[in-house]
Amino acid sequence: MTAAARPLAEAATLVERVLARHRERTVTELLRHIPEQSPPYLYELAADYPARPCKGLRSALCLATCAAFGGDSGRALNPAVTVELFHNGFLIHDDIQDGSELRRGAPTLSAEHGVEVALNVGNATNLLGLRRLMANRHELGGELAWRLFEETELMCRQSLEGQALEIAWIRDNACDLVPADYYRMCLKKTSWYTFLYPCRSGLLVAEGANTDAARLDRFGWYLGAAFQIQDDVLNLIGTEADYGKEIAGDLWEGKRTLLLIHLLERCTPAERARVVRYLSRTRAQRGPGAAEDVRWLLDRMAAYDCVESAQQAAAGLVAAAEREITEVLAAAPDPVEPSEEAAEAREFLLALPDFVVARGR
Amino acid sequence: MTAAARPLAEAATLVERVLARHRERTVTELLRHIPEQSPPYLYELAADYPARPCKGLRSALCLATCAAFGGDSGRALNPAVTVELFHNGFLIHDDIQDGSELRRGAPTLSAEHGVEVALNVGNATNLLGLRRLMANRHELGGELAWRLFEETELMCRQSLEGQALEIAWIRDNACDLVPADYYRMCLKKTSWYTFLYPCRSGLLVAEGANTDAARLDRFGWYLGAAFQIQDDVLNLIGTEADYGKEIAGDLWEGKRTLLLIHLLERCTPAERARVVRYLSRTRAQRGPGAAEDVRWLLDRMAAYDCVESAQQAAAGLVAAAEREITEVLAAAPDPVEPSEEAAEAREFLLALPDFVVARGR
Repeated sequence: MTAAARPLAEAATLVERVLARHRERTVTELLRHIPEQSPPYLYELAADYPARPCKGLRSALCLATCAAFGGDSGRALNPAVTVELFHNGFLIHDDIQDGSELRRGAPTLSAEHGVEVALNVGNATNLLGLRRLMANRHELGGELAWRLFEETELMCRQSLEGQALEIAWIRDNACDLVPADYYRMCLKKTSWYTFLYPCRSGLLVAEGANTDAARLDRFGWYLGAAFQIQDDVLNLIGTEADYGKEIAGDLWEGKRTLLLIHLLERCTPAERARVVRYLSRTRAQRGPGAAEDVRWLLDRMAAYDCVESAQQAAAGLVAAAEREITEVLAAAPDPVEPSEEAAEAREFLLALPDFVVARGR
Repeated sequence: MTAAARPLAEAATLVERVLARHRERTVTELLRHIPEQSPPYLYELAADYPARPCKGLRSALCLATCAAFGGDSGRALNPAVTVELFHNGFLIHDDIQDGSELRRGAPTLSAEHGVEVALNVGNATNLLGLRRLMANRHELGGELAWRLFEETELMCRQSLEGQALEIAWIRDNACDLVPADYYRMCLKKTSWYTFLYPCRSGLLVAEGANTDAARLDRFGWYLGAAFQIQDDVLNLIGTEADYGKEIAGDLWEGKRTLLLIHLLERCTPAERARVVRYLSRTRAQRGPGAAEDVRWLLDRMAAYDCVESAQQAAAGLVAAAEREITEVLAAAPDPVEPSEEAAEAREFLLALPDFVVARGR
């Protein structure tokens, strides 16, 4: 049955079931490696974000990719924990940088414990990730351990560069961006660590250090762009309870989303001047009067169908991701011993694009 | 000639000469590895702190230890660059956490470019350190590369835990600390990454992955405590131009220095109540009126000889460090081919304790 023919509800149930199972495995293993002896405000807080309700998408993707390509997902557990640790480390630092108040439905570490503590906890979380990478040497052998180090270094580099791009656009008040700029930033900031890195890690564990770990890159890149666009849309139209973060926070922060780029491309010169003026000020400089500006921006985005066109772009990317994963799976050799886990993992990967955009993170 | 008998000026000249030469080598090599292609506000800013005037103590210690124990200091250059990168990554994050304005005589990255950019640049600096650790595999072989990874992980863990301790004392307004608490924090926060880690790295490169890399630990630990005490003293009595940082910043931040612990132990109950009340407020809560409190604290520290007793403690630690390095060097096997570099490196290590406290960082 192709992804398109599979009823959405059934596929979603499968995706949710696999996510829940992998999340349980990953979080249990992750928490087992948090040091018990800790100075106050360090390791015990590194356990906070991972234990909050979330889908565990990245680690599940690592485990499912390993299984779908004939590997033993148990061997991918340590890499999956690593993926999750670096993800949480990024979130903690991100929340400091954005001055965010909410994460996964509760106060951010920086809002609750201050920047000083949160910065340390983010670094401690990354350090725990490094420790897991070192543990690979004994669990998976030196060759594969080095490859996973290389993948992690590349992922961190891409993520940092993507974030630097986004920050630079806000700082330098870039207002002439085109969608291709946004997509380039997405690939680096979101796709790499959310999709490419987990897929590459899973492939490496399944097939060994010398495999072509890049053959799911296009799948990951399409999916990541769809995922980020959907996240940007939810940021505008979601409710705080569903989304777990401040609503329209992206507008308050001046983030260069596809929706904002569409608005800047489509609005009248007078409207554009107002948008540019709004964007030229920091959140602090705008003061409380900015609430009216944000309402006006939302209204103009509605008038120019910015949400609809972003959703259309996401739908196109989902279709492209489905084509990619179908092709790569079809080209993979049949498993020597077909297992139920491998079959389910393949279904999971095929259903994931639709799920990601239909359900959000 | 023993360290004690050597005239201070002559020894200082030797230390300064070796520092300057190693700094030149290390910074040149470090800057060579900063990626040229960079999104704005990322790698080019990672080159900022390392290129500012500084002594380059940590990398010089790594290179000199390697040479003093019969190794080829050229092979220790990559580890020395790694030491320097992680040091600078810490400084950038530290300056965010402390809200510091000045570093090495110029505005901090966070003061000049904001927390958002500085946090990223700190992470990018750490990532460049990780890349150097990976490069060891080809330069020094897999076994030694893994050992240096282990040492780096341990060093990062110690530093983070030490910093967490210090932060927790301020947050929880710890006022019943004794000097032993301070020394424990020093070992973790300062000694490990400034002295133990560079010495251990240098020994490993000189003698191979299976050597006893811990035999300079006591030297590093005494020296680190002396160094931190001297830094705390300079923070109080230095001038901004000499020190490169805000004067009495530690008092503004409520840092638990040996001087403050001595004051709390020695002052009258009424004075103690005022100190505790001052410490219970954050810098923001204290407002501009705090300048008078800071002046009063300085006056009380003078009245109770807190600077003198801290300096005495530092002098005792310097003597202990000199004993340690003399013994460890005496126990080391004579080099197969005695070289001028090895002899000079040994002189450098012997003279370093006195220099560290006489000259500051």
